[in-house]
Amino acid sequence: MDSILSYIENHKDAYVEELKSLLRIPSISSSPEHKPYMVEMAQVVENEMQSAGLENVKIIPTEGHSVVYGEWRHAEGKPTILIYGHYDVMPVDPLELWDSPPFEPEIRNNRLWARGAADDKGQFYIYFKAIEAWFAQHKTLPINVKIVIEGEEEMGSVHFEDFLSKHKEMLACDYIMISDTAMFAEGFPSITYGIRGLATAQINLKGTNSDMHSGSFGGLVKNPIHALAEIISQLKDENGHIAVPGFYDDVLDISEKEHLALGKLPFDEEKFRTSIDAPKLYGENGYTRLEQLWARPTLDINGIWGGYQGEGSKTVIPAEAHAKVSMRLVANQNPENVLQLLADYIYTIAPKEVNVHVELMHGGFGYLTPLDEPALIKVENALKAGFGKDVAYIREGGSIPIVQTMSDILSATAVLIGFGLPDENAHAPNENFDLTNFHNGIRSIAILLKEMATE
Amino acid sequence: MDSILSYIENHKDAYVEELKSLLRIPSISSSPEHKPYMVEMAQVVENEMQSAGLENVKIIPTEGHSVVYGEWRHAEGKPTILIYGHYDVMPVDPLELWDSPPFEPEIRNNRLWARGAADDKGQFYIYFKAIEAWFAQHKTLPINVKIVIEGEEEMGSVHFEDFLSKHKEMLACDYIMISDTAMFAEGFPSITYGIRGLATAQINLKGTNSDMHSGSFGGLVKNPIHALAEIISQLKDENGHIAVPGFYDDVLDISEKEHLALGKLPFDEEKFRTSIDAPKLYGENGYTRLEQLWARPTLDINGIWGGYQGEGSKTVIPAEAHAKVSMRLVANQNPENVLQLLADYIYTIAPKEVNVHVELMHGGFGYLTPLDEPALIKVENALKAGFGKDVAYIREGGSIPIVQTMSDILSATAVLIGFGLPDENAHAPNENFDLTNFHNGIRSIAILLKEMATE
Repeated sequence: MDSILSYIENHKDAYVEELKSLLRIPSISSSPEHKPYMVEMAQVVENEMQSAGLENVKIIPTEGHSVVYGEWRHAEGKPTILIYGHYDVMPVDPLELWDSPPFEPEIRNNRLWARGAADDKGQFYIYFKAIEAWFAQHKTLPINVKIVIEGEEEMGSVHFEDFLSKHKEMLACDYIMISDTAMFAEGFPSITYGIRGLATAQINLKGTNSDMHSGSFGGLVKNPIHALAEIISQLKDENGHIAVPGFYDDVLDISEKEHLALGKLPFDEEKFRTSIDAPKLYGENGYTRLEQLWARPTLDINGIWGGYQGEGSKTVIPAEAHAKVSMRLVANQNPENVLQLLADYIYTIAPKEVNVHVELMHGGFGYLTPLDEPALIKVENALKAGFGKDVAYIREGGSIPIVQTMSDILSATAVLIGFGLPDENAHAPNENFDLTNFHNGIRSIAILLKEMATE
Repeated sequence: MDSILSYIENHKDAYVEELKSLLRIPSISSSPEHKPYMVEMAQVVENEMQSAGLENVKIIPTEGHSVVYGEWRHAEGKPTILIYGHYDVMPVDPLELWDSPPFEPEIRNNRLWARGAADDKGQFYIYFKAIEAWFAQHKTLPINVKIVIEGEEEMGSVHFEDFLSKHKEMLACDYIMISDTAMFAEGFPSITYGIRGLATAQINLKGTNSDMHSGSFGGLVKNPIHALAEIISQLKDENGHIAVPGFYDDVLDISEKEHLALGKLPFDEEKFRTSIDAPKLYGENGYTRLEQLWARPTLDINGIWGGYQGEGSKTVIPAEAHAKVSMRLVANQNPENVLQLLADYIYTIAPKEVNVHVELMHGGFGYLTPLDEPALIKVENALKAGFGKDVAYIREGGSIPIVQTMSDILSATAVLIGFGLPDENAHAPNENFDLTNFHNGIRSIAILLKEMATE
């Protein structure tokens, strides 16, 4: 292992330069004008897989952007890991907020600044370089490896489920490794064992056939904005619990063991509060802050509109009012069931003076890696050795619906090892990636390949 | 009187043709490009006053659009009435919804279709023609008359209060007559003895310093849309009463006599409901529909916004949420007091996890003509004779703040005699004015001039 780690140490600057060339390609998947860059990016990933030493490398078309695949399967009797990543990036608006151009990577303060640096080019590249180091030193790998890098993650992986079903045998594996999340904080190499699911809906209210004069009709007409406010105010009770009947039926309780483990993670509530300028934090009674954030479901109104929004006043009783709802779910909540419960409840409490329609939009399952999964110890050992620090077991408040889908279709356990940091602005201007974590990440994955091969 | 009424009968078609020429001038006060038409319109009104037989006719400049004034003051020992009207009209958008061009008056189904036909050119013109008929037949008027026609009513009479103060002596009178409202229904000549006041505000909520990711922050942050919904849902109680403490303190109770009188007016609830496509009407418990609409104050949210309003979903916890509030007041509510009560209450109930600011906007008093005012009998007699129908005593849900202002500054009682109909689309496309009411209006006002002269 020492020779590999020395090799990695000797090449650390070269790795950064190589990563820069990936970051110069503006592979924005949601932008039709960027289609040529998506094609170019897939070719670069293909080349990088080949030079890392992978075999059967290929670009596989889908109905959207292509998927790039590579493998090495000569470690007989050893387990197979499937590494998942994505080569597409988020749009860069508003451009004027970037301190340096998003597709001209630049190093400042030991961080690499560019769109995609942390999400996800820098993270999947860690695996490429760890594999390359193994081949450079030993001309072999200790386990079987498959890598799949898709191009539509930032668009909701719209064609990836279909791809998984079609290529189920090719992708067959024992474990799925994903590095597309963040560490708990600097100096805390982390295993993310839980992510929340998601379910979204839109509430549409209609009162009258057009906006009404508030003088000529006010007093006789139920205002749909009032009706919507009454509905929203009944979605949670005074303790911050979600009031939808049956909502918590499938929620997995937080075990005493997990409660104690989460309690040991340092969470500076005041620092968190001031960082977002909130007058006061708010959460569900009976749970710690990290439990509220990671292990408990939430319900939020993401947007609301109706009537007059301009300058001054326009004294109408609006005909319509609308709100967008999202819920973050935890295992084992089923998004479709939860959406139906929400709709049923809203129809029950809706004032009869307005017409209400709840439009069910989409959802995705959360994911929970069982804490007694033996592979987690191996990952922990690798991260501890790679970073020289104790490992934090964390959950993530956000959602990556494709994780549960992959795990289901491939019947494999997923393990999330995020190398990003919470302040690296994934999806925002000034995205960046800490170079120490990049380097320690390559060390960790090189060690992980060996760890995963042990009994 | 008979000779005057015959004269009016003989000239009825001519009156309509003359009114058309006023309606051809697009005197949209709020549109700077229409300024030349405003100037032209004031000159036409001046000419019309002169040919009606009024004296001292003049166009008086203000800081905005001019006011046109005329008078006849030779009925010694007799009372003086001040007739108020406005020569400006509302904008005409959306133009494509008009069945005939808004400034090309056209007669269909005994109605005159044009912007301003009912609001207010057709209505103030009734007075011009009644006066003209008196002069034509008797070369005199039975009472003293002053007429003031302003050009900014549709902009909130922004310079008219100032004008009233400056010309207080010139405008001195015993009664103010205003025809700028509607009759109860076809066949119901009406005296509008009450109009509601108005007070408007905007509620601004701020949670965090920017929109937050609902996954990475959901569970720890109070959503300002939820907070706003909680506030709005507490503005009224389950009986539809406004929950702001002190809100009703100055509200004049509905007398038994008025309750009985309003109860005699036919109000077809089902017809009203289906005309606006409301699933069910809604109002304050304990009051009849007409009382809810006319004699009780209301509170409505005119607009609400916050977060994401586009297609699909964007799972943010918005930084801000806003709502516009308007309240219709009844005599004797003071708009400034009521706005302060609203703000105080909102600050009391607002969740502490968000910052709330209530922006007080503007307000205007309601007006109530005392039902025991002796002049009302004279107006009733005139309308009954002019229309050949019983007269309805009604109130109006909307607001004309300048009425209370005029009454205060001139220390005179105002009487509102609307000749419009509720379906004549004042402020909307396809404005029109019923020609029978136009004709009977001229008859009524000719009679009224004599009635008002009696002891």
